[in-house]
Amino acid sequence: MSEVHVKGLAAKQASYALVNVTTEEKNQALKLIADHLLAAQQELLTANEKDLQNGKESGISPAILDRIMLNEERIQAMAQAIELLIKLKDPIGETIEKIEKENGLRIYKKRVPIGVIGMIYEARPNVTIDAATLALKTGNAVVLRGSSSAKHSNMALVKVIHQALKNSRLPEDSVQLLEDTSRETAKELFRLNEYLDVLIPRGGKQLIETVIRESTVPVIETGAGNCHVYIDESAEWEMAKNIALNAKTQRPSVCNTIETLLIHEKWFEEYGKELIQLFQDKNVEIYGDEIVRGKCPNVLIATEEDWATEYLGLTISIKVVSNVEKAIHHINYYGTQHSESIITHNDQHAALFLNSVDAAAVYHNASTRFTDGFEFGYGAEIGISTQKLHARGPMGLEALTSSKFFIYGEGQIRN
Amino acid sequence: MSEVHVKGLAAKQASYALVNVTTEEKNQALKLIADHLLAAQQELLTANEKDLQNGKESGISPAILDRIMLNEERIQAMAQAIELLIKLKDPIGETIEKIEKENGLRIYKKRVPIGVIGMIYEARPNVTIDAATLALKTGNAVVLRGSSSAKHSNMALVKVIHQALKNSRLPEDSVQLLEDTSRETAKELFRLNEYLDVLIPRGGKQLIETVIRESTVPVIETGAGNCHVYIDESAEWEMAKNIALNAKTQRPSVCNTIETLLIHEKWFEEYGKELIQLFQDKNVEIYGDEIVRGKCPNVLIATEEDWATEYLGLTISIKVVSNVEKAIHHINYYGTQHSESIITHNDQHAALFLNSVDAAAVYHNASTRFTDGFEFGYGAEIGISTQKLHARGPMGLEALTSSKFFIYGEGQIRN
Repeated sequence: MSEVHVKGLAAKQASYALVNVTTEEKNQALKLIADHLLAAQQELLTANEKDLQNGKESGISPAILDRIMLNEERIQAMAQAIELLIKLKDPIGETIEKIEKENGLRIYKKRVPIGVIGMIYEARPNVTIDAATLALKTGNAVVLRGSSSAKHSNMALVKVIHQALKNSRLPEDSVQLLEDTSRETAKELFRLNEYLDVLIPRGGKQLIETVIRESTVPVIETGAGNCHVYIDESAEWEMAKNIALNAKTQRPSVCNTIETLLIHEKWFEEYGKELIQLFQDKNVEIYGDEIVRGKCPNVLIATEEDWATEYLGLTISIKVVSNVEKAIHHINYYGTQHSESIITHNDQHAALFLNSVDAAAVYHNASTRFTDGFEFGYGAEIGISTQKLHARGPMGLEALTSSKFFIYGEGQIRN
Repeated sequence: MSEVHVKGLAAKQASYALVNVTTEEKNQALKLIADHLLAAQQELLTANEKDLQNGKESGISPAILDRIMLNEERIQAMAQAIELLIKLKDPIGETIEKIEKENGLRIYKKRVPIGVIGMIYEARPNVTIDAATLALKTGNAVVLRGSSSAKHSNMALVKVIHQALKNSRLPEDSVQLLEDTSRETAKELFRLNEYLDVLIPRGGKQLIETVIRESTVPVIETGAGNCHVYIDESAEWEMAKNIALNAKTQRPSVCNTIETLLIHEKWFEEYGKELIQLFQDKNVEIYGDEIVRGKCPNVLIATEEDWATEYLGLTISIKVVSNVEKAIHHINYYGTQHSESIITHNDQHAALFLNSVDAAAVYHNASTRFTDGFEFGYGAEIGISTQKLHARGPMGLEALTSSKFFIYGEGQIRN
């Protein structure tokens, strides 16, 4: 049997035990993981050094090396995140629905663990701890498949988890790490329907697209964000410029940052030049349509490709539109159903935009940057789902649960 | 562009209009469909006759021909089902969650349509009406792909739907039927991620497995039911025999019927022979393990394959186990996560069984035959999900909805 098969089976078996552990037992295990992480700091840094060394030798970019890098502060941050997770309400066992039938049957729909969660992700080793502890909090086993560039770090982290679990009431097999990080193991994971209940990719667009294309295991799609702000005719200058600048420049590398700004032609006529100057003052590179370029110097030509691009950096494309319907159409055509905002004082336009734009989060007069599990108050975030089944938008612990009907009778049969 | 592409795009565009229709407008459209169905009875029967004639010529079995067959009564039943659907509460627009942030942001998580639903199904033409009307009630567009054996009936039914929609406020394009029922169009549908938000297969095991294996569009898995009753040591004879017989024989061809009976060894010692006689009196063919065969004549040898088989007929396999844990293990190994029941007076055993058995519906002292959207009081059933994401167990209208965050601010930006 291959490593994927052996570890998938072990996780599946652990998942059967996990349905019978209590919240207290889960929290105790999490506490042990946090403690062991802090105690194993030295081993973790040594393992991480190997990854960094290998990365430098194979020419990995400084940006990626920074993502791989562990230090005392980052290890402490992992432990602190676990302490916060312990305090969160355990969703498992909650009764979602109760039905009493005339024949005396009592039907309870309750929250239960999903079972085994597959997680496939890129450089950051903190995802290893994050994914494992979120899964355990919700009573799930997990099969982790990180990248080869963080292999030694991930192995050291999972060793710490196993030591902690050994001292807990949870099965050590609840957390599995694939050590073979070749393409072949990823492909095997994509088709491991026998043991995996869901596969969650965390990483860049290419990873996510590959998983969706190749996986027969159900996938929760996360991440890609080609987001927009639309400034309507009636938008107030001060509010519009603040939101547009915040949505682009406050943290350009993340998914809820905007990539395209849509502006009503009349508003553009009045304020366009000034707004573009403000972006340029912040070193934002601007691609614009003909109208934008006609009015402003130093704006590059926006091509069809620009409207579909998630720049993830200090670049923006700007398009002038004649009405709110055109803005909605543009967003539904080019957007990735993540976060979309309209700035307007016209409530009818706002309602039409919010209803008609097909996205996980739609905003009236606020920055798209708020689409985030912590900002929403969930206390944890598995990712931001941009699909429509199971979970949409920021996913808290509930996204890692399923439901089950518990039915109690006294001998009822069907007529 | 291919038929699949053209119709997928048309459905997508219709879905953008459907988010802005009211409950009243949807119900009016449904009423028109019901009326038009009754008025078009003669055309429908003529079209159906063509399918029946073609079916006879190509040697389709009488059982399948019966599924394809329409008559006055069946057409009336379709219209009546629509009248009931009209009365059901519209789930769209419901606020599921409300979050108020310190910064004044108001976040509403609301139920919205999924968008475009793909439905792939076998012989029964009533699924055409069923799928289309459930989709419309929940504000979704639908792309239907029925079987070639019911092609003329399906085309006639969709013609009726289009005539009704033409007189309604809903776009006529909301319902699309693929007229080319070749394998190629099915394959195109499996990969139509650009336009489809979900694909729901309704039919036999092979169809469902093909869709899961080949589809990159998210799938809701329905249907396969290798269900069990476990009779524990303390089970009362009268209750146990009634439930076991009901779960097998009340309607053997459906998914919530049991295929294997597990019996505690002590109970079997006392009542096994008598129970098996009762099954045989009802013409149930029995496959048993060595213990069963040692005690009872006319029992065939159960092979490994039997434990995994959904007979969907008057056949059962019976296995004797030494305790509840063995029963749980057998079910988790061979079952299809549909419906599972324990008959016992031991509450600890019941709790262990209900928690540990991994299935959509778990029963204590009742027949598995109750797993059904109508029995649960949902008033409609899209199918019974045997997967764990999005929806599990009987699916009512809510299973055809997604959610969306509506966020209202007064210029909030993120710090």
